[in-house]
Amino acid sequence: MTDWQATRPGETSAPLPGRHDAHLVFIGRIRTPFVSRDQCPRQGSQDGPLCRVEIEPAFQPALQGIEAFTQLDLLYWMHEARRDLLTQSPRGGASTGTFALRSPVRPNPVALSRVKLEGVKDGVLLVRGLDCLDGTPLIDIKPHRCMHPASATTSPDKKPSPPTGAGRLHLPPQPSS
Amino acid sequence: MTDWQATRPGETSAPLPGRHDAHLVFIGRIRTPFVSRDQCPRQGSQDGPLCRVEIEPAFQPALQGIEAFTQLDLLYWMHEARRDLLTQSPRGGASTGTFALRSPVRPNPVALSRVKLEGVKDGVLLVRGLDCLDGTPLIDIKPHRCMHPASATTSPDKKPSPPTGAGRLHLPPQPSS
Repeated sequence: MTDWQATRPGETSAPLPGRHDAHLVFIGRIRTPFVSRDQCPRQGSQDGPLCRVEIEPAFQPALQGIEAFTQLDLLYWMHEARRDLLTQSPRGGASTGTFALRSPVRPNPVALSRVKLEGVKDGVLLVRGLDCLDGTPLIDIKPHRCMHPASATTSPDKKPSPPTGAGRLHLPPQPSS
Repeated sequence: MTDWQATRPGETSAPLPGRHDAHLVFIGRIRTPFVSRDQCPRQGSQDGPLCRVEIEPAFQPALQGIEAFTQLDLLYWMHEARRDLLTQSPRGGASTGTFALRSPVRPNPVALSRVKLEGVKDGVLLVRGLDCLDGTPLIDIKPHRCMHPASATTSPDKKPSPPTGAGRLHLPPQPSS
């Protein structure tokens, strides 16, 4: 099994500053078929296995209207990753800065995946496209920006993403936000 | 000036749970020309103004190799946004769940922008595509996934993103990670 804590040649670390600049509240948990790091794909695929995103009851009202979208950005907390590596040598390759990698190991181990929403029921989202360990804490859900262009919110009398199916249209990719 | 704290008709709130599930350490600050919420664009544009992303000295070694990428994902903390709204009525529109919106107001106000990297010097990234207030705290930097395909890291003798210019190729968009 991969040792998440090992340091490889060429890797450098520094203790994380002791200060806590902001705090997160986990809004739910992600259930995947991946129970060890070795089982996690390098990157999720929208043809991958169906995963469950279980939202805490207190936050379930915030899902209202989510069913209008097929593409979501999920942010989650890679709770088993160390946070102190400044350079890394993935798979024994050359030393590279942490911010030039998408490794889980980073000062703030927030991961981002774009997923395909397959269904919503009783506070659970069914999605494809995840790569994370079973039990990973969830931080945020946003409509993917290509489905939520800035122009959709410019009319004061128009709901940004009506659950009429309009939100399911694949609009051209926009510069991000 | 927009009142970030006001509640509009149709909006519902609940106190954020008191627990702190994880903590963030700010890795730098973002300098933009936008000094009030009203000046911030609805969404950043890669044709927008040049912004400075100032990395704390302790984290600057983690930038090694970043110059190989032209497209980065930046994660930042919307430090002025309230965190307790479950449904919102943007611009007076219909009530919509927070997770069906990309509003700054959310339980964990982590924003995501895809930016164009124009230059790197002395621990400062020059980028276009941001929409946030001047002084916004930075949480993370990752190569955008379309420039960092999973296949790039599968060969043990190959650096994922060599600063040779190869990383600047625009590869087809991949399912996300």
